[in-house]
Amino acid sequence: MMGEIKTVGLLGGGVIGGGWAARCLLNGLDVVLFDPDPDAARKLEEMLQNARRAYRKLTSLAHGKEGRLKIVRTPDEAVFEADFVQESAPERADLKIELLARASRAARADIVFGSSTSGLLPSTLQSQMTNPERFVVGHPFNPVYLLPLVEIVGGNKTSKGAKELAAAFYSTLGMKPLHVRKEVDGFIADRLLEALWREALWLVNDDVATTEEVDDAIRYAAGLRWAFMGTFLIYRIAGGEAGIRHFLSQFGPALKWPWTRLVDVPELTVELLDKIEHQSDAQAGGKSIRELERLRDDCLVSILQALRGYGMAAGATLQRYEERLVAKSNPPVMSKKYELAVPLRLYEAFASSDGGNDAIEKFYAKAFDAARDAFLSYVGVDGSRGFAYFTVETHLAHRGNVEGGAQIHTTTQLRSLDGTWLHLFHSLFRSDDEALLATANQTLMHCDTYHHRACLPPPDVLRRLEEIAGAHARLPLPLDST
Amino acid sequence: MMGEIKTVGLLGGGVIGGGWAARCLLNGLDVVLFDPDPDAARKLEEMLQNARRAYRKLTSLAHGKEGRLKIVRTPDEAVFEADFVQESAPERADLKIELLARASRAARADIVFGSSTSGLLPSTLQSQMTNPERFVVGHPFNPVYLLPLVEIVGGNKTSKGAKELAAAFYSTLGMKPLHVRKEVDGFIADRLLEALWREALWLVNDDVATTEEVDDAIRYAAGLRWAFMGTFLIYRIAGGEAGIRHFLSQFGPALKWPWTRLVDVPELTVELLDKIEHQSDAQAGGKSIRELERLRDDCLVSILQALRGYGMAAGATLQRYEERLVAKSNPPVMSKKYELAVPLRLYEAFASSDGGNDAIEKFYAKAFDAARDAFLSYVGVDGSRGFAYFTVETHLAHRGNVEGGAQIHTTTQLRSLDGTWLHLFHSLFRSDDEALLATANQTLMHCDTYHHRACLPPPDVLRRLEEIAGAHARLPLPLDST
Repeated sequence: MMGEIKTVGLLGGGVIGGGWAARCLLNGLDVVLFDPDPDAARKLEEMLQNARRAYRKLTSLAHGKEGRLKIVRTPDEAVFEADFVQESAPERADLKIELLARASRAARADIVFGSSTSGLLPSTLQSQMTNPERFVVGHPFNPVYLLPLVEIVGGNKTSKGAKELAAAFYSTLGMKPLHVRKEVDGFIADRLLEALWREALWLVNDDVATTEEVDDAIRYAAGLRWAFMGTFLIYRIAGGEAGIRHFLSQFGPALKWPWTRLVDVPELTVELLDKIEHQSDAQAGGKSIRELERLRDDCLVSILQALRGYGMAAGATLQRYEERLVAKSNPPVMSKKYELAVPLRLYEAFASSDGGNDAIEKFYAKAFDAARDAFLSYVGVDGSRGFAYFTVETHLAHRGNVEGGAQIHTTTQLRSLDGTWLHLFHSLFRSDDEALLATANQTLMHCDTYHHRACLPPPDVLRRLEEIAGAHARLPLPLDST
Repeated sequence: MMGEIKTVGLLGGGVIGGGWAARCLLNGLDVVLFDPDPDAARKLEEMLQNARRAYRKLTSLAHGKEGRLKIVRTPDEAVFEADFVQESAPERADLKIELLARASRAARADIVFGSSTSGLLPSTLQSQMTNPERFVVGHPFNPVYLLPLVEIVGGNKTSKGAKELAAAFYSTLGMKPLHVRKEVDGFIADRLLEALWREALWLVNDDVATTEEVDDAIRYAAGLRWAFMGTFLIYRIAGGEAGIRHFLSQFGPALKWPWTRLVDVPELTVELLDKIEHQSDAQAGGKSIRELERLRDDCLVSILQALRGYGMAAGATLQRYEERLVAKSNPPVMSKKYELAVPLRLYEAFASSDGGNDAIEKFYAKAFDAARDAFLSYVGVDGSRGFAYFTVETHLAHRGNVEGGAQIHTTTQLRSLDGTWLHLFHSLFRSDDEALLATANQTLMHCDTYHHRACLPPPDVLRRLEEIAGAHARLPLPLDST
């Protein structure tokens, strides 16, 4: 239908149109944008700054040269030389119909037009266009430069080729096209969002919850799951071994309860149950519930850790939890003022009860890792600021066995501190007779985990380390310390 | 009201009760659990294994000793010695009422009872209990051992002290208690989930979408935002500079559209607009829209990167996008069969046009980073498998200046490969006359980014590196290479 897309014509440069501009420019495409707002250039530049900042963090791969942005005064100028047009005018059918009719006369006849409408029907929007077969809804989500979804919806005049070309183009911008089978108001995503949004408004209206409480009810639980699995796959897992059909029949009666103010509900007929079960099986692609659970947990853990980096929502909860773990550990790290003139006694535990030499070795290695973690917590390194110490080398020396269940503890001596490098020496003792069981020499390097580079620790961490280094410099060298 | 909680009595050990067991045990609490299912012990152990695995990844802090699990045959035994009781029986009011009545007679009179009900009213559930004032709903979300939210709801007999004690206890387990102001069916979260779920069922019922398409419509867009900001804060941002009130008035009319099959909607009165605006201002805590946007983008980026690690949903889209970036780079990395008998020409760019020595130095450093990234991509290291090369040292030598806009390229020579260590030498040339502009010696270390440890690269990466190392061993040493 057409050649390579180098220049994109944008009709509208608000929150959505500006997001398209950023996504296109950062992918090296030239943009010609029409917006009647006299303040459009400033708003666009602010959004572009945010988008550039986000892209630098998003991937370490080079993006190539940024495209050129030209702001023009008429829709005709925006589409005249464009290889693809995206319309993001305000959400009013009359306005969009007129704009699309005019622009389609000015553009080349074979240029595909995407519309960002969040719910107006494509058959309506394309009705006054020249060559209406090249019109397709490509509905993105805010922020357009980061969220991948774009819903593809054709009207009754739209050609298959136009839908395919639009989907392929959006894919080159790093997006995920979702073909919507039927032309319905609100398409798929906004019907779901709108249902939740209406219920949220009821909750605030009825003083059941404030806006913040509604948000908390989402972002501390279901929102974390929705980020990667949606709703049907999550419920498939919740059904456990008994399966999605069992889940539906078990929780189906709740559909009849008058919980929500949104009251029209589908009948759970055998046909609907069959359909959902069949589609859910296909979606799971042969993965067992246990496998799906582990995948779910891995994703949840990594999202919780990602949010911990910004102290945001569930990430803040994890931060507080870790502070509590640290305070609870015996002896309490961080909160305790340590005697620095001796090696730091930072970790206590009970030896695991399954014997065997292999189990003991693993237990020792784990104890030294815990001692290192306790030391790093003590000096203020918790991974939450984009920095971490990486253990480059560990020399473990086994000195004796321990019976299962025995209490043990570790001591840690700071051997040297040199720029990004840190050298620790740990000893592991049986607590009741102070018998030395094992030692570990660890060499660690401080890194910027976002940019994958060695770097100096932050000033507060460095201060603590230097204080300990000063005190430990006067300690005798341990036996195994070379 | 009571002392330290050491032993938790659990009534029910299914998906929810088992999740509570895991969360309590991993936090060092002893658990006595009643479940009539003869298969309960096996299912519990499987869930515990998943939970242990997740916790080892969740935080590097030591969790202390795991609590002891005892499975008992009667509810009385489960609560007899408990310091806190959590009921997670099937979601039937009659069953829960009877179970709570019986267990409350067997437990100490001052022990708080939490119920995991997802929507039954606490006033109903506590009606037959002895000391009903100690009963409170503590509604968690699956998987209970990872998701932080727990909704706290009191019935008409519930004491303030019971609600506070339950909230404090759940907090020690790393959870986020949300106090629900009014006793309504479904509380807050499940009313929202139920609204979305009903609409999802309609979409599948009406063949607008399959279960997978519904999930995709969530997890590639709104779900990513819901993971950390909920719905009101996100719409506050979407409203841009004009604010939440403008947003509501602009999109409010859509509430009247017959999009959804769930049709009862609240009236957007001035009172409701006032209330939402006021609450939303409080929630934003003085942060500007631009600040909120940056926070949103940071969270989105880190979630996208987290999901990339598992190739899941939007993370898979990011993976494909990066593959496309790599393939698009000129010359195409990965897809190209390189001549290995010469240094690899992996990166081309145009010098940035803002002159000045400082800008040039930054540009050189960036070009070498890009060359390193291209090299790592070429050998198959993309950070997506929990492994990364960290740049431990870079020695940069400046040999000449370049005019803005000039085309440059880099070459990369593998100097040595030794276990976890990799030594690269890059040269940067002006392309039109092959003038040497700068060189960089880089020492990199391969790490396991989950466990923060140096480790060998995966076999496929090692094979490629060895192949290049073999070929480059025959190349002459570059001038600046020491």
